[in-house]
Amino acid sequence: MRKAAIGSLVILALVSTVAAGDSQAVQDIHKVLADQAAAWNAKNLEGFMAYYWKSEGLTFQSGPSRLRGWQTMLDRYKKNYAGDKWGVLSFSDLEVSVLAPDAAYVLGRWKLDGTAQPLGGVFTLVFRKFPEGWRIIHDHTS
Amino acid sequence: MRKAAIGSLVILALVSTVAAGDSQAVQDIHKVLADQAAAWNAKNLEGFMAYYWKSEGLTFQSGPSRLRGWQTMLDRYKKNYAGDKWGVLSFSDLEVSVLAPDAAYVLGRWKLDGTAQPLGGVFTLVFRKFPEGWRIIHDHTS
Repeated sequence: MRKAAIGSLVILALVSTVAAGDSQAVQDIHKVLADQAAAWNAKNLEGFMAYYWKSEGLTFQSGPSRLRGWQTMLDRYKKNYAGDKWGVLSFSDLEVSVLAPDAAYVLGRWKLDGTAQPLGGVFTLVFRKFPEGWRIIHDHTS
Repeated sequence: MRKAAIGSLVILALVSTVAAGDSQAVQDIHKVLADQAAAWNAKNLEGFMAYYWKSEGLTFQSGPSRLRGWQTMLDRYKKNYAGDKWGVLSFSDLEVSVLAPDAAYVLGRWKLDGTAQPLGGVFTLVFRKFPEGWRIIHDHTS
């Protein structure tokens, strides 16, 4: 009886630890996305891009195409969102799913207001936790 | 010296185990996708759908929308790909990235030949390993 009670406590403690780890990860990733939108809306593209994995391994799929590499992605943003196409970015309907202590994926909707024509859609992000924090390693936007 | 050598061997063994685990996962996921395409091309929609997580938790994003649940996804396929829209499905440019022993994501291109107008695009899949094998838990197709 005593052993069973202790066993239950140990299991409970383990479950709580996992849940706490997940909930911290979910919170940290929500903060990354909030910071990204804030950086975008301050026209701080480097700040926005800081949350993408600064590597040739970063991948980005959109429409029918796949891009690779942080610099390529930065150049694409500079080209596609110059001047009045910048708009005000907001994210909604975010769903963060933690896959491992250092891996997660996120579903969400994006919207750009204040552009000539309203832009928006859905995205899937894959996140990895690095020593410097959670970073997007793959982005699929449509 | 002896200890260092043994230490190196242990590290080597661990690295090899991880690499072997990853390479088995990559191989298993490639097989899932090959089996899926084969099932589709045999007009076996249930066989195709067998590799999606049979749960309300399954998510599917496409164009501007998000769907939820295995049955919803099956119904969508039945509706959208009836008759001459079925076509011959092929996948290419597959990149499998293992995130954890039971989690991975896949980038790829899809193509439907033999339809009235050619269809195709890119996809991102998130996989989880269940007792019954690797299953798609999220699909973003554009």
